[in-house]
Amino acid sequence: MEAAVEQSSCPACAGAWPRTDHLIARGDVADLYLHEDQFFRGWCVLVLRRHAVELYDLTCTERHAFVDQAAAVSAALASVFQARKMNYELLGNQLPHLHWHLIPRRLGDPSPLEPVWRIPHEPRTLTGEDLEGLVRRLRLVLQ
Amino acid sequence: MEAAVEQSSCPACAGAWPRTDHLIARGDVADLYLHEDQFFRGWCVLVLRRHAVELYDLTCTERHAFVDQAAAVSAALASVFQARKMNYELLGNQLPHLHWHLIPRRLGDPSPLEPVWRIPHEPRTLTGEDLEGLVRRLRLVLQ
Repeated sequence: MEAAVEQSSCPACAGAWPRTDHLIARGDVADLYLHEDQFFRGWCVLVLRRHAVELYDLTCTERHAFVDQAAAVSAALASVFQARKMNYELLGNQLPHLHWHLIPRRLGDPSPLEPVWRIPHEPRTLTGEDLEGLVRRLRLVLQ
Repeated sequence: MEAAVEQSSCPACAGAWPRTDHLIARGDVADLYLHEDQFFRGWCVLVLRRHAVELYDLTCTERHAFVDQAAAVSAALASVFQARKMNYELLGNQLPHLHWHLIPRRLGDPSPLEPVWRIPHEPRTLTGEDLEGLVRRLRLVLQ
């Protein structure tokens, strides 16, 4: 199978992912969205604005800005959601446009020692007031 | 349960993890080791030299050096192991001393679209000549 999604067919570049109603904040290098599955409350994705696939495809300036933004967002998420630990993951196996998964692992987490991918659960999708309320709250915190 | 491992009881600070015979290279900010389970061949861990738990606990200079080293190592691993995608993960749920998992996802990967944590497998531990040979090869590449 072919790994690379070309820029022309990249859902992130086409604006098809993440959903725009999950947008929290636009940044210089990357945009922050609430992850669609909020079973792990506060899980966000920080999506690079331009198309690039690997950390080593970025210029130093871009990479530093990207990791600094990930760190700043994570500090805010850890505080808001009282995380015992933050998880930071760049995978891209399914969608290779660079994006961080920033996941607050909370005290009430069902399996705090395991990566989230090992924890079976029903996805928790937020809609309407619940979605808007959480997005608005995070916008205020991150201002 | 308590999240934080204090520095005094940190296995990374005590030199108890990773195993010294898995050491590939020492860096200014972080040291590179081969991961003990080589089922995903080329999986390495890049361990911060000083004790810190979160990306936002680092100074900008440290964080930039850490991510630049992760990127440089990943470029080499991707080339050596012909990765279709690199995975970069900072978790620390079990051992919160900052360390990147740098994982080449190869063409022959049993489940290339999934995070490694979702792929059941028997760990593949290298010993003797096999271990020394791979460590030596990566040292040469990373020089």
